[in-house]
Amino acid sequence: MRFLSATSSDGVREQLFTLDDIPGALWTPEAAPAAPLPLVVLGHGGGRHKKDPEVLALAHRLVRECGHAAVCVDVPAHGDRPKVEEYDRLAAENQARVAAGEEPAPLIAAFHALVARRTVPEWRAVLDAVRRLDHVGAGPVGYWGVSLGCGLGVPFVAAEPRVRAAVLGLGGALASPEAARITVPVRFLLQWHDERVPRDQGLALYDALASQQKTLHANPGGHAEVPPSEQDGTLRFFARHLAR
Amino acid sequence: MRFLSATSSDGVREQLFTLDDIPGALWTPEAAPAAPLPLVVLGHGGGRHKKDPEVLALAHRLVRECGHAAVCVDVPAHGDRPKVEEYDRLAAENQARVAAGEEPAPLIAAFHALVARRTVPEWRAVLDAVRRLDHVGAGPVGYWGVSLGCGLGVPFVAAEPRVRAAVLGLGGALASPEAARITVPVRFLLQWHDERVPRDQGLALYDALASQQKTLHANPGGHAEVPPSEQDGTLRFFARHLAR
Repeated sequence: MRFLSATSSDGVREQLFTLDDIPGALWTPEAAPAAPLPLVVLGHGGGRHKKDPEVLALAHRLVRECGHAAVCVDVPAHGDRPKVEEYDRLAAENQARVAAGEEPAPLIAAFHALVARRTVPEWRAVLDAVRRLDHVGAGPVGYWGVSLGCGLGVPFVAAEPRVRAAVLGLGGALASPEAARITVPVRFLLQWHDERVPRDQGLALYDALASQQKTLHANPGGHAEVPPSEQDGTLRFFARHLAR
Repeated sequence: MRFLSATSSDGVREQLFTLDDIPGALWTPEAAPAAPLPLVVLGHGGGRHKKDPEVLALAHRLVRECGHAAVCVDVPAHGDRPKVEEYDRLAAENQARVAAGEEPAPLIAAFHALVARRTVPEWRAVLDAVRRLDHVGAGPVGYWGVSLGCGLGVPFVAAEPRVRAAVLGLGGALASPEAARITVPVRFLLQWHDERVPRDQGLALYDALASQQKTLHANPGGHAEVPPSEQDGTLRFFARHLAR
């Protein structure tokens, strides 16, 4: 793990790093409470990156309001990472197939599965490295990710026993067959008029989660219109489930 | 409005009253803040009454934690009210029809509609009377009711322009055709394994609400198993929407 920069604002320290060839950002309290800190892994959306405004806003609130650490790395072919020829080819192929009338859900599922074969081991390695840092430590772990962050988050949370609680959503069941292996508390966000994820697919993904504690929060509006008040609930959720 | 008794505990004053022949309970802060207070009308569940433990717990928290007033009256044929022969006959008839294989949802719908023809004007009269009291006043009004309290609450909220925000749930669309006339913010509770309300009926009722701000909260478990954490959310919801 190599640190590239460290800056601070509003009590939040941000360190940019690379781990092998993975670029990431780590946010921690400037006035560090005693480690180990709860750590939330953030999965960014499709076409976004580790310092996407939504990711950044959530990371800052997790640090400031909960005293947690947060980390986000660029998904392959996103942010500071090079293009992946295979993904580009597949994306173009899929676009053509959808334009020709094919159902998008199975295509998205296959694409997520392909990307997750890389991100799941990458994110586990990031967890290993970040939890070895003196100012973070091996505390409880949470996961947050919607849309692509849900498609990649479901296999990650299913594979990673250190994750104790997860916020997921804006994803469908077909794209996330590993949901039945998730047993930790989940807060699941669904947009009632999601133009990208059919409503029944979103409901089916919530249904498929094996967690005994799982809450579905649905709100009116499209894929990108989750109401800001849901972020307050996300903070309360992590504060409750990642309490030391 | 005739007061029968007044008691206090933990900072909450409880007054039992009758309005015409309707028995009710009113909860207000003992150390009264300046009226008008926000007032939440509580609709109890089927077979329950105005001092049901769930109603009582919510009323006390609304008073203590939000400084609101709360009121609940017995639905006809519930609590301290006399039996209604017509309801008993219909209930027995419906039981027989369900036992014979008929779908319960339309029968429940017809029954709710019958009871609502009495409760909607009764609850509106209670609102008039309570908001004329010096220690309550004509402040913002909210409504809370699940199960029967949703079946009767939907026509009440649809008919009553003074209600600004409502918590509803554990009810189905067929039983609540007035949902499309509700435009105020709604928090809607749904139990994922509700043995009394089919899931698609609950989702359809949420869908039918005309409110721009409406959140569906679904949790695993049966009709009576709403997790206690939802009550915290209900308090936050009323505190936000009934702020003076």
